[in-house]
Amino acid sequence: MKPESIRKYRPFPAVDLKDRQWPDQVISATPIWCSVDLRDGNQALPTPMTVEEKLEYFEMLVRIGFKQIEVGFPSASDTEFNFLRRLIEENRIPDDVTVQVLVQAREHLLRRTFAALHGAKQAIVHLYNSTSPLQRRITFNDASQEKIKKIAIEGAELIKELVPTLPDCDLTLQYSPESFSDTELDFSLEICEAVMDVWQPTEENKIILNLPATVEWATPNVHADQIEWFCRNLKERNKAIISLHTHNDRGTGVAATELGLMAGADRVEGTLFGNGERTGNLDIVTVALNMNSHGIDTGLDFSDLSTIREVYERTTHLVVPERQPYSGELVFTAFSGSHQDAIKKGFDRRQKDKAEFWGVPYLTIDPQDLGRSYEAIIRINSQSGKGGIAYILDREHGYDLPKTMHPQVGTRIYALADEQSRELTPNEIKDAFFDFFVNVSAPMSLIDYELDHHAGERGEVACHAEISINGETRKISGIGNGPINAFVHALDQAGLKKFSLVDYRSHAVRGGSDADSAAYIQLQGEEQKLVWGAGVDSSIEMAGLKALVSAYNLLSAS
Amino acid sequence: MKPESIRKYRPFPAVDLKDRQWPDQVISATPIWCSVDLRDGNQALPTPMTVEEKLEYFEMLVRIGFKQIEVGFPSASDTEFNFLRRLIEENRIPDDVTVQVLVQAREHLLRRTFAALHGAKQAIVHLYNSTSPLQRRITFNDASQEKIKKIAIEGAELIKELVPTLPDCDLTLQYSPESFSDTELDFSLEICEAVMDVWQPTEENKIILNLPATVEWATPNVHADQIEWFCRNLKERNKAIISLHTHNDRGTGVAATELGLMAGADRVEGTLFGNGERTGNLDIVTVALNMNSHGIDTGLDFSDLSTIREVYERTTHLVVPERQPYSGELVFTAFSGSHQDAIKKGFDRRQKDKAEFWGVPYLTIDPQDLGRSYEAIIRINSQSGKGGIAYILDREHGYDLPKTMHPQVGTRIYALADEQSRELTPNEIKDAFFDFFVNVSAPMSLIDYELDHHAGERGEVACHAEISINGETRKISGIGNGPINAFVHALDQAGLKKFSLVDYRSHAVRGGSDADSAAYIQLQGEEQKLVWGAGVDSSIEMAGLKALVSAYNLLSAS
Repeated sequence: MKPESIRKYRPFPAVDLKDRQWPDQVISATPIWCSVDLRDGNQALPTPMTVEEKLEYFEMLVRIGFKQIEVGFPSASDTEFNFLRRLIEENRIPDDVTVQVLVQAREHLLRRTFAALHGAKQAIVHLYNSTSPLQRRITFNDASQEKIKKIAIEGAELIKELVPTLPDCDLTLQYSPESFSDTELDFSLEICEAVMDVWQPTEENKIILNLPATVEWATPNVHADQIEWFCRNLKERNKAIISLHTHNDRGTGVAATELGLMAGADRVEGTLFGNGERTGNLDIVTVALNMNSHGIDTGLDFSDLSTIREVYERTTHLVVPERQPYSGELVFTAFSGSHQDAIKKGFDRRQKDKAEFWGVPYLTIDPQDLGRSYEAIIRINSQSGKGGIAYILDREHGYDLPKTMHPQVGTRIYALADEQSRELTPNEIKDAFFDFFVNVSAPMSLIDYELDHHAGERGEVACHAEISINGETRKISGIGNGPINAFVHALDQAGLKKFSLVDYRSHAVRGGSDADSAAYIQLQGEEQKLVWGAGVDSSIEMAGLKALVSAYNLLSAS
Repeated sequence: MKPESIRKYRPFPAVDLKDRQWPDQVISATPIWCSVDLRDGNQALPTPMTVEEKLEYFEMLVRIGFKQIEVGFPSASDTEFNFLRRLIEENRIPDDVTVQVLVQAREHLLRRTFAALHGAKQAIVHLYNSTSPLQRRITFNDASQEKIKKIAIEGAELIKELVPTLPDCDLTLQYSPESFSDTELDFSLEICEAVMDVWQPTEENKIILNLPATVEWATPNVHADQIEWFCRNLKERNKAIISLHTHNDRGTGVAATELGLMAGADRVEGTLFGNGERTGNLDIVTVALNMNSHGIDTGLDFSDLSTIREVYERTTHLVVPERQPYSGELVFTAFSGSHQDAIKKGFDRRQKDKAEFWGVPYLTIDPQDLGRSYEAIIRINSQSGKGGIAYILDREHGYDLPKTMHPQVGTRIYALADEQSRELTPNEIKDAFFDFFVNVSAPMSLIDYELDHHAGERGEVACHAEISINGETRKISGIGNGPINAFVHALDQAGLKKFSLVDYRSHAVRGGSDADSAAYIQLQGEEQKLVWGAGVDSSIEMAGLKALVSAYNLLSAS
């Protein structure tokens, strides 16, 4: 930042807590987990989930082992209301799972929220209002602490009145002083105790006090100080569950939750992979697996992390970053030779010693415990990665391979690099790509062909081709809505079609219509086998036909 | 994780440090920064940087303000050796910048490293060896502490002998007990003091002791305890610069560095955006901007973060995740209505009050201080994002638009959503896409066309077309190596070609050769204007020609 910009920022005030205890603590037991994926996570999606996607996601959260799941803000929209109704009416909430709903302190919203919960066996009603000086000044037009406290108390009183409308529901009440992280600690305490005075929690039916770092403003030790100060000063600590809800504006959301647990919190709100507004919510996957890696059972099962990630990416349309702890594509990958060597020795030694405890250099946990495979761990450096090969072909040579073709090409060229025990240059990669996949001409080759645009109906074309197959020359003919299709029909009529055409792509190798064209065709053969082939030619038509012949030959050879 | 898996993990041992001081500290001054992008970062790239890319990256690091830059492991490969030689011989290292080189404690590697430094005005030679019990057992085949210490001492002695070979170089020596984070603290201290005994640093020419969390094994407070313990127990603390080098295996690399600074460290190694092995190195951008946000000048200038990110992504071929603090695409975006409202009020209030200090809800800093714009902050929810529209067209309808076409389509459909002040359904998005971009037929339309494959040379085709243009019907003819090219030549001969063809793509809309085809053509008109058009037809040829006509018409209208 420029010095003149820096001047408008100030240090964050320290917490007055000289005899803090949290730095001596170690996390040794699991907190209560609450997923806020379907509320805080969903509200920050460029493309929000459909009801069907939410149902699939909810079922995944249940399978992972979440017992508390915030399912939305039912008074905010019909979609959220209807989603909760479906969960209840279709009996989708297991008996040991509690749904949580968020609501602001306004009468019509509260009434609609309680209506949405009708028929639920157990639920958490989560009331919040914003409390920080910044929010009071800006959002609430210079409202006083008294006025903000009154909003909370009136909301709490309304909820108390509405509780009897759900006589068969086991209700827990939760209050969040939103923006706790930059609220004066004594005011947070005052407003939380005022809500407790209204709700009258007991040791058997505790209140949940959720203390959100709605925005992360300071280093994570400050968050821990805030939580310890609050826990030590709360009048009836035994009647409250203290809950954390951290965000990641300074990149320390995971640390803030961990230090907050050391500081005395009982419960953690967060989302899978940290989905959420701006820099995201707490990534519960990371915190839970951090605990697992120290031998703590969390009650959450991420042993099939790949499937969880697949459902997440499909329903949220977000991508888990490559270097996200535990779940990212590259986190169990070693590029450096010395790392690869040490990891290999670690696995060998582990097997030899039949070791009871985990101990492999550079790997904090066994990837297999997350359903990830050993094969992925050691990847030869440089262009040999599968994505890398496609990248080189595109960037250096102008061939933009279809995504689903990457693994087929990557595996073949990777094997070549492996045979030669060295990296391949970009030109060698291109040559290998041509050798294996482009204009493959055995057992079938196209000797000659002619197209007739007057043979069929409008838009149709006839193809008369001379081919060589297994050394024998044959003339074949067919008709279709384009040259490729016509050629496919010609093969069919000659009894040579043992495939179906699944996909094709084509593009100019370099800009401009006079340059080479590349075409890619994917065929499906017997036993659902899928194979891509490529064709390159100055003629667009010819590139397509060559791609088809290549794929045909590669399918025969496979 | 499954309970049976968890059993093989153990808690991390606590540091015995009851009177720790770091939790009372506040970061108030900037550390010495050292970028390890070109070494630790580069070694973990699926596609390593070329020398040209490294040079560009080095210049960017200098512009940002780094005064210490680790440039590689010159004894490890010719590429790394030659890169350093070019920096020196082409006089690319400013007088106030020191290059750092990494080397293992082996004679031939050390000699080659010193050879690579010949002619440098100032340099840091960075010696390391791995010290943890795990590394000693696995990688060094049950080596004793004594043996590991001997490796360090012998390396240090060799370096001491080689120092006089660079008489004109201002040399600083650095030692890293690699895997410090899981090494016994007293052994780390012993080995570092042994190296200091050899090198005999002074208060004027300090040793750098770099204490890497090569792997992050514990919560970040443990890292701080380790650093404070080390600083307090080191014999000649005044003759050493204590350096941090954290990784991110538990998602707390930023926190570990911040708490480590509070614990007494003087220097920070890391990379831009956290590039590095597995979960990555420390993200220096985040730590430095965290400091800026509390009013601390760091000497690093990230005021043009978008350009820095662009160079980073182009040279590393990695992508900065959307929710990376400060630099991610989504971090200055508010999706929730209440957040948008509060942010807007914050900006308005700021202007009205002519406020000296920053204070806008949900934003820890002013995006403008990073060269990011206010426009990006409030984005209308849902499918209205530009990426979102392309996603819907692909996922829901099977149209896979070329990447460079996304902004053109996004902007147009976004404007429609804006006009109607609501989200569009997937079907409405498809309809809008067709209305604006597909088979556009004015001012030009294709009435009829005929292809002749016998008109030109082998692989060429003639196109005879009847078109209507501005209400007038014309017959035109051309020849080319495919239907599109032939049609372009026909337009040319008719005096209608005021464009050049830049790119085309086509694909089957659904699998199988009998389904619809989609084609996309990009034309460049006057003043370099680029426009995409699309065509959809059951005939592949016709789809391509329609795409060309669409692009032609859109170009005329633009």
